[in-house]
Amino acid sequence: MPPHATSTIPVTHRVAGIVSVGDELTLGQTLDTNGRWVAQRLTDAGLVTIEHVTVPDDLDAQVAAFRRLAQVADLIVCTGGLGPTADDLTREALARAMDDTLVEDPIALAQIESFYAARSRVMNASNRAQALRPSRGATLANHNGTAPGLHGQIVTREGQRERACDVFCLPGPPRELFPMFEQNVLARLSLPAGRTVRTRVLHTFGLAESELAQRLGALMDRDAIAKGRPMVGTTASGGVVSVRLRYEGSATPETAAAMLDECESQVRDAAGVYLFGGGSDTLASVVLSMLRQANQKMGVVESCTGGLLGGMLTDIPGSSAVFAGGLITYTNALKTLLAGVPSGNFSAGAVGAVSRETAEAMAIGGLRTLGVDHALAITGIAGPEGATPAKPVGLVWIARASASGLAAPDVDCRAFQMTGDRASVREWAAKTGLAMLWQHLAGVPAMKLLRQV
Amino acid sequence: MPPHATSTIPVTHRVAGIVSVGDELTLGQTLDTNGRWVAQRLTDAGLVTIEHVTVPDDLDAQVAAFRRLAQVADLIVCTGGLGPTADDLTREALARAMDDTLVEDPIALAQIESFYAARSRVMNASNRAQALRPSRGATLANHNGTAPGLHGQIVTREGQRERACDVFCLPGPPRELFPMFEQNVLARLSLPAGRTVRTRVLHTFGLAESELAQRLGALMDRDAIAKGRPMVGTTASGGVVSVRLRYEGSATPETAAAMLDECESQVRDAAGVYLFGGGSDTLASVVLSMLRQANQKMGVVESCTGGLLGGMLTDIPGSSAVFAGGLITYTNALKTLLAGVPSGNFSAGAVGAVSRETAEAMAIGGLRTLGVDHALAITGIAGPEGATPAKPVGLVWIARASASGLAAPDVDCRAFQMTGDRASVREWAAKTGLAMLWQHLAGVPAMKLLRQV
Repeated sequence: MPPHATSTIPVTHRVAGIVSVGDELTLGQTLDTNGRWVAQRLTDAGLVTIEHVTVPDDLDAQVAAFRRLAQVADLIVCTGGLGPTADDLTREALARAMDDTLVEDPIALAQIESFYAARSRVMNASNRAQALRPSRGATLANHNGTAPGLHGQIVTREGQRERACDVFCLPGPPRELFPMFEQNVLARLSLPAGRTVRTRVLHTFGLAESELAQRLGALMDRDAIAKGRPMVGTTASGGVVSVRLRYEGSATPETAAAMLDECESQVRDAAGVYLFGGGSDTLASVVLSMLRQANQKMGVVESCTGGLLGGMLTDIPGSSAVFAGGLITYTNALKTLLAGVPSGNFSAGAVGAVSRETAEAMAIGGLRTLGVDHALAITGIAGPEGATPAKPVGLVWIARASASGLAAPDVDCRAFQMTGDRASVREWAAKTGLAMLWQHLAGVPAMKLLRQV
Repeated sequence: MPPHATSTIPVTHRVAGIVSVGDELTLGQTLDTNGRWVAQRLTDAGLVTIEHVTVPDDLDAQVAAFRRLAQVADLIVCTGGLGPTADDLTREALARAMDDTLVEDPIALAQIESFYAARSRVMNASNRAQALRPSRGATLANHNGTAPGLHGQIVTREGQRERACDVFCLPGPPRELFPMFEQNVLARLSLPAGRTVRTRVLHTFGLAESELAQRLGALMDRDAIAKGRPMVGTTASGGVVSVRLRYEGSATPETAAAMLDECESQVRDAAGVYLFGGGSDTLASVVLSMLRQANQKMGVVESCTGGLLGGMLTDIPGSSAVFAGGLITYTNALKTLLAGVPSGNFSAGAVGAVSRETAEAMAIGGLRTLGVDHALAITGIAGPEGATPAKPVGLVWIARASASGLAAPDVDCRAFQMTGDRASVREWAAKTGLAMLWQHLAGVPAMKLLRQV
C-alpha cells in the first residue's frame, strides 16, 4: 500500500458536521463564508448538516469539536488551520481525535517541493510541517496551494459496535477549498441506497423576494417533501433572488428529474421575465453569452461604480470575445473628455452629473468612443457623501445605448433609488445595468425593475 | 418586583460562546454575518469567544448547545429563533436549558400589541407566543421589531459551588439585533477586575505567510499569554497577510498598551516595508489617503483586470478626491486608441499585449490622457485561455508611471507570475499594483514583491 493511502471503514453519509478553525473567525476579524458554501454543497448532495461549529486556533477546542461531532455525524468537513505556521493546528488536532500520531508523508512532501520549484520560490522549513498526516490517515492533493488536505476516520463505540466518522480537513482559502471539496469529498460520498436527492437552482433579478414568494404561492409549501413533491425555497443575495428546487424521497432518479422539470416550468411561469438563468449563471455570464451568439460587442462608461461593472464582466472567462473595454469617468472633466458629455451639464444650476441627460450622453459617447454595439452607463450618488436635497444617496441613473445601423442609437435610460450602504448601492447599480441590457437582448418588454423610480 | 425583572446571580464575564439558530444557516441558504459581528463586539469588550456554534431549528440541538456552552462560558449570545412561527424554538430551548417553564410576560405582550397598533397592522395569535419567557428569566425590549429578546441564567455545578452563565437571546435581523446587543448585552457586562484584554491588527502585502512567520520568529510563541506577553498570530486573505496582536492578563490597561506598542514595533521591524497599515486599512484606502495628503491624483489603465482595480479604489468613500478615472483597454485597438500604445506592439512577432513595452506605454498614456500624477497599468493572462508557450496563464506585467515635473515620467515596471484561478490572478494583480504605488508614495526601496519574477 502506498504511504499516502490507508484502509478505512465503509460509512454511509447521512448526517454532517462542519468545523471552521481560526482565531480570526472567533475574534470576529474575518467573516466565514466557507461554512455556508460547504453547507450548501452538502445539502445539495442530500446530507443533513446538524451543526456548524467555529473554534479558535486552540488544540483542545478543535480536538473536542472533532470528537463530539464524530459521535453524531457520519461526515465532518473542517476548513482552516492547515497553514505552515505555529498556530495552524488542524493536523495535530485530527491525529489526537483519532488517537493517532503524525508522520511525514513523502508524496505530499514531494508535491509541496514541486509546488515551490515550479514557481522558483524557496521552501521554508515551516512548509515541511504541511506534509504531516495522521499515520492512519491520508493526504489530499492541493493543486492551488501548498497545504495538502487530510482524510482520517474517528472511530467511536456505540454499545457493542464500532461506528466511524469520515473527517476531511481542507485549506481555508476558497480557491483551494472549492476544487478540493468537489474532488475529494463529493466524489467519495456514499449515500443511502433507495434515497434520491435532486436539486436545481434558478435565478431572478428585479423582483423583491417577498413579491417572488407571492408569485410562487403554493409551490413554496413547507411540507412538500413529506408529500413526495419537490420543495421550493428562495434566497436573496446581492440583489439576485434565487429559487432552490429540491426533491428528496424514494422516487427513481428519472421520476425525480421529471418532477423537477415540471416544478421548474411552474417556477418559470411565476417568475416571468425576471428569471434570467440557473445553476452557475450570473447576470454577467448570461449577457456575455447572448452577445457572443449575436456576434456583438459591448462596453461600459462608469462613474459611481468606478470599474465595478467592467470588473464583473471581465471576471467571466472568455469575456474578451465580446467585451471591448470601458471608460471610468469619475470626474466631470473626464466625462466630457472621454465620453463627450457636454460640459454645460456641469455648470451651476444645470442638470449635473447625476441626471438623465448625463447618463444618456455617457452611454452614447461610450458607444462611439469604444466602437461597440451596446454601451451601459452608470452615474449616481453612492454615498455616504455627495448627496443634495434633490439628489439623495442611492439615486442612480443608468442608460443603455445600442447602435441601430446608421440611425440614431436606441437609448433606454432609467432612474433608481437604491438602498443600503455604498457597496450595496454600487453592486445593485452594476447588476441593474446588466439586467437592462439583458431585457433588451432577450427582446422582452422593458419591465420595471426593483427600486426603479 | 415587576413581572419582567428577576434576580440573577452575579457573573464576571470572561469567556463567551455564540449560538446562531436557523435551518437557513445549516442548509447553507443564508450567510451568517451576525456571528462575526457579535464576536467582534465581544472581542473589543475584552471577552474571549471560545466557540461559535450554528444549529438548525431543532429543540434538542439548541438545548444541548446552551447546556454545553454554559459549562465553559460566562456569557452566551444567541441570535435567531425568536420569530412567531412554529419553527422558532429559542424561547422553549432557553427555558429547558434553565430547567424552567415558559410564562406569558404582560409587559412584553403590551409592547407587541402597541407595535402592531402603531403600524395599523393586525396582530396574529402566533405573535402572542413572542411574549413568552422563562419564569425566572426576563424579556428585553425590541424597538425595531416584534420579537422581544430574552435573558436568563443557566446554573451549573462545579464541584461544591454553583456557577451561572448569562444567556442573552436576540432576534436575527441585524437592525433589531445590533441596537439590542448594545443596549442589553454590552451595557450589562461585568468585566473581571484586574484583567485586561487588548487587541491590535497590522496588515502586510508582498510576503508569503510562511516567510512573514519566519521573520516574526519567537514573537509567535504560542505560550505568550501564559508568559504575560502579547500573543502574535498571522492570517492570510486575498494576498494580504495580517498580524494579530493580543494581550490578555493582569497588567493595567496602560501597561498592556505599552506592551502592545513594543510588540507592534517589533512586528513592524520584522515585516519591514511589507507592512502597509493596520485596523480597517486596505491597500486601496492607504494609497488613497497618502495621495490625499500629497494633494495628488491617480488613474488606472486596465487590461486583464478589466475595471477591478478602479472598482477597488472607488469602493472607498471619498475616493473621488484623488481618483480621477481610468481606461479599460481590454482590446488591443483600445490600448492604442485610448492609451496611445503603438499599434506596432501588436503586429505578428512583436512584443504583444502582455509585455514590458505595452505595460509601460499604457501607464504613460494613462498619465497623459487622464491628466493625473500617477497611473497604474496592468496587462496579463488571467486565464484559463489566452496562454502561449512563452506567456503562461498568470503572467502579468504591471507598470506605475508618475509625472515628474516637466521631465519624462518616472516608470516602475515589473513582471509577476501569479498563481491560482482567473479571479485569484486578477485580485493579486490589482493589489500588487497598489503595493507598487504604495512603495513609491512611502519612499521605501522598490522591494521585490511575492510572485515577482
